Amino acid sequence: MTSSVIKIDPALDLVLEREIDVPVDLVWKAWTTPAHLKEWFVPKPWTVTACEIDLRPGGRFSTTMRSPEGQEFPNEGCYLEVVPNERLVFTDTLLPGFRPAPEPFFTAVLELTRQGEGTRYKAIAIHGNQDTRKKHEEMGFHDGWSTVVDQMVEHIKAQRP
Amino acid sequence: MTSSVIKIDPALDLVLEREIDVPVDLVWKAWTTPAHLKEWFVPKPWTVTACEIDLRPGGRFSTTMRSPEGQEFPNEGCYLEVVPNERLVFTDTLLPGFRPAPEPFFTAVLELTRQGEGTRYKAIAIHGNQDTRKKHEEMGFHDGWSTVVDQMVEHIKAQRP
Repeated sequence: MTSSVIKIDPALDLVLEREIDVPVDLVWKAWTTPAHLKEWFVPKPWTVTACEIDLRPGGRFSTTMRSPEGQEFPNEGCYLEVVPNERLVFTDTLLPGFRPAPEPFFTAVLELTRQGEGTRYKAIAIHGNQDTRKKHEEMGFHDGWSTVVDQMVEHIKAQRP
Repeated sequence: MTSSVIKIDPALDLVLEREIDVPVDLVWKAWTTPAHLKEWFVPKPWTVTACEIDLRPGGRFSTTMRSPEGQEFPNEGCYLEVVPNERLVFTDTLLPGFRPAPEPFFTAVLELTRQGEGTRYKAIAIHGNQDTRKKHEEMGFHDGWSTVVDQMVEHIKAQRP
């Protein structure tokens, strides 16, 4: 269920909803463990070369993405809400320790709902204006976020004994 | 005690520390109840003409300040951490619902520690760069924040039977 504090504005925000056939606790683990996250977080053949997770409000969430040509793109932000197996909110608008960031872009909300043996997976990108929303859409939000969900499901299934 | 997630950077941040002779729970109430906050939050003869408080992470904290000449200055932001009688963190960098704000300026941390019948009061303004720190200092951070602590103490004492 969407937290009552989060108000989706269709003119500003982007939403991806999926039903996936892996359990909610493994999705949570895939999102909150660097060793797992690095395996699926960016569309291949891009890779994640570094990831740091300090899973508490104000704690660091950083990743470094590497293009197939070898160029690296660091991202840094912090967590805002951490409700295990339910909701994870983070932003690049604040650095660790809630410090205002030099290049704010968006806040991400991940909402997980148990659905039998599977998970209803909802990802929301919250923007401050229509320009950043448009930029995010043109960067390939829908395809990109959907592709990495597929990669995540595949990664989770590959871990099973 | 400063939360371990908050890292004060003397080059970027501004800090006010005071010992005041009013109890911690009344200071908390003064900060988190609109009717009380409006009485002391800006240096007189400025006034607060509106205040909204939704006391939870992502919840709205807004105030409208009015100059002696009658000009109004609205401020909007959201809470990030709410630990009753201990720590209150809010920012104008994110609007309610954690939406990136158009004019981010700083994150504020209020830390209260019970000290006998009184309170150790620590306010920290966290900035993203030296320019915003300097601007905040020139706006009169030290005098202003100190003046309103005096006003708050006076307001709290005036409530006593």
